[in-house]
Amino acid sequence: MTNDAVGAFIPGSRAEMAGAADGPLRGLSFAVKDLYDLAGHVTTYGNPDWGRSHGVAAATAPVVNALLQSGADLAGKTKTVELAYGLTGENVWHGTPINPAAPDRFPGGSSCGSAAAVSAGLVDFALGSDTGGSVRIPASYCGVYGIRPTWGSVSLAGACGLGPSFDTCGWFARDPAVLARVGEVLLPADNCGGGGFGLGPLLKVGDAWINAEPGTARALAGAMAAAESLLGRALPVELAPEGLATLYEHFRCAQAEEAWATLGGWIERTSPEFGPGVKERFAAAKGMDPAKAAAGRAFRRQFTARMRALLAGGAVLAYPTSPSPAPKLGISLAAQNAVREATMGVTAIAGLAGLPEVTLPLGRVDGAPVGLSLVAAPGRDRLLLGLATQVAGAMGQA
Amino acid sequence: MTNDAVGAFIPGSRAEMAGAADGPLRGLSFAVKDLYDLAGHVTTYGNPDWGRSHGVAAATAPVVNALLQSGADLAGKTKTVELAYGLTGENVWHGTPINPAAPDRFPGGSSCGSAAAVSAGLVDFALGSDTGGSVRIPASYCGVYGIRPTWGSVSLAGACGLGPSFDTCGWFARDPAVLARVGEVLLPADNCGGGGFGLGPLLKVGDAWINAEPGTARALAGAMAAAESLLGRALPVELAPEGLATLYEHFRCAQAEEAWATLGGWIERTSPEFGPGVKERFAAAKGMDPAKAAAGRAFRRQFTARMRALLAGGAVLAYPTSPSPAPKLGISLAAQNAVREATMGVTAIAGLAGLPEVTLPLGRVDGAPVGLSLVAAPGRDRLLLGLATQVAGAMGQA
Repeated sequence: MTNDAVGAFIPGSRAEMAGAADGPLRGLSFAVKDLYDLAGHVTTYGNPDWGRSHGVAAATAPVVNALLQSGADLAGKTKTVELAYGLTGENVWHGTPINPAAPDRFPGGSSCGSAAAVSAGLVDFALGSDTGGSVRIPASYCGVYGIRPTWGSVSLAGACGLGPSFDTCGWFARDPAVLARVGEVLLPADNCGGGGFGLGPLLKVGDAWINAEPGTARALAGAMAAAESLLGRALPVELAPEGLATLYEHFRCAQAEEAWATLGGWIERTSPEFGPGVKERFAAAKGMDPAKAAAGRAFRRQFTARMRALLAGGAVLAYPTSPSPAPKLGISLAAQNAVREATMGVTAIAGLAGLPEVTLPLGRVDGAPVGLSLVAAPGRDRLLLGLATQVAGAMGQA
Repeated sequence: MTNDAVGAFIPGSRAEMAGAADGPLRGLSFAVKDLYDLAGHVTTYGNPDWGRSHGVAAATAPVVNALLQSGADLAGKTKTVELAYGLTGENVWHGTPINPAAPDRFPGGSSCGSAAAVSAGLVDFALGSDTGGSVRIPASYCGVYGIRPTWGSVSLAGACGLGPSFDTCGWFARDPAVLARVGEVLLPADNCGGGGFGLGPLLKVGDAWINAEPGTARALAGAMAAAESLLGRALPVELAPEGLATLYEHFRCAQAEEAWATLGGWIERTSPEFGPGVKERFAAAKGMDPAKAAAGRAFRRQFTARMRALLAGGAVLAYPTSPSPAPKLGISLAAQNAVREATMGVTAIAGLAGLPEVTLPLGRVDGAPVGLSLVAAPGRDRLLLGLATQVAGAMGQA
């Protein structure tokens, strides 16, 4: 990268690679979150101690190879929250990327650098990863399109894990058609499981709209109308009679247990230095009550069955990706935590159930972006990407 | 019938037939609505002129033969609203059956005699037919179980039609296990269409609960809790953002057009005498604006797609079968029409979309029964009948 004015890339990483001379992504440039291995480069996972203790990667992650072989040119590695465990996008070691769409606000995380690089126009698309919102939230905050695909549909080989049963490989683009083109390279064919071959009806998820700030809900009314122009009038539905806070709590406990199982060994062996917030979250993960984690897993099974049955015939959920635009830089840790809880009650819907979610940057609140999410049954990612392009077109933004 | 104290049967019809000596329904007695042909008997369709002009039936309807061959004994033919075109259960020619569960109230129609015969304990089960609510409403009013199966799943050969794309062969029983046993004889195997093999989640249809009188909603709270104990907490949903009145209007127009196409020729040729209400409804059917009927058919296609997609994975709708218990005898025609409109906005859900609906007599308002309906995707009738038995068991009524 020659001119990284928003600080999206890992300083000094110099990981440029030319794509194949021909292919469906020829002419597009991309970046990858610094948790995907590139042969000959150190993967930092956002933390200097991680980089030092893991050294140079031997092989390139298959998903990156697939993009290179499809003709896209790699521009470099982007910043991530340390060990992908945070939603604001802050990184005290590499510096927090500037949110190009709202410079006085957080970029969102953990895939902060990828979102910022796309938002600033430095690349056409960028890979992130999403465990509990790490693609969807920075996409919403930075005003770009983003997808968290069906869990398990895109390989995470050669990528650092946080919670393997939640982790997904997602990506960002400014243009919904580019988001879909990347999907054509990375995603398997859709599998509608015999439950119909289209999308619809549209379900307006009341829990999540009520959870959103009034300004966010108003800002996304036009985007909802565009979606309704394609799928018919939305049916109001509530997905979590037990409350979104309960969803968040179960997600947090089940995911924390996995985070510690995945990363606790390295943390115990290495005693790495962590920035504020990350350290506390791993301490909480270490101390997670096994009974709470088990309750979280049990709830997850029930919730997943509920969601998959509801969506099996093609229904599409619609709700604000984040309940508010990005929080302003410099707000207190308590305020950040409140935002985090309200946000993850919503991101937990697709997170718990492994559903594909596309976020569309079709709203603005006080000049800052906020996204509308469309969510479908597992295996309908390509249909969903097509729908996102159509909705954007209906908004006059395609 | 030796003692028809509630006037459920066609006076003097003497249509008793012994069932096969062996079979899954051996030991059960049943009655059939007088729109199913019995060889050697006149089918009146509730109207003397119909009987006179059609004469003696040559063959028995296959559905009746199937029941006889399964060992059930036929006790006779039951009263119906004339040409099945009415919901109160009134018949000026044969007399309106008494509602055994609430003698000062209408029995509900059009399958009034079958519901009354079952409710009074005169037979174990009875066949009705349901176009716009003609099984579900008398079942709710008379306090018995009833099913309107998936459209097209049970033969209507040898039965008089009203609106062929809406007409279904349904039945009543006091015991949900008997309702299910009859289904095992009459229904094809379930076909879940690849969209999963169970039932759930439970969807509480807000439109229909709000449409119900407050007393009805309260009276069915225990039944809802029983259903939730089996399928998990219900998710609130609204099915008709355009309003239940719109559903009713589209149903009315599309169905009236079919009613006239089906029966108008006979009416024009025969100039039959009709009782009050029936005459006016056929006059309206004759004068139905083709544009309104076409709009009804177009809406029906959209609504059907919406419902089938929503239910494809196994979701079950729950709502009060009728918004109130049976209206009291002697209320004005205007009051009857108001009840009819509020009722058919709800019955139109399954009616338009061809969905199976089971009504469970699990509520009482001012001493009169009211039913809870469970509705699933087409092809899940047997699962639904099993669920009804389980819900009744959970209420301590099985």
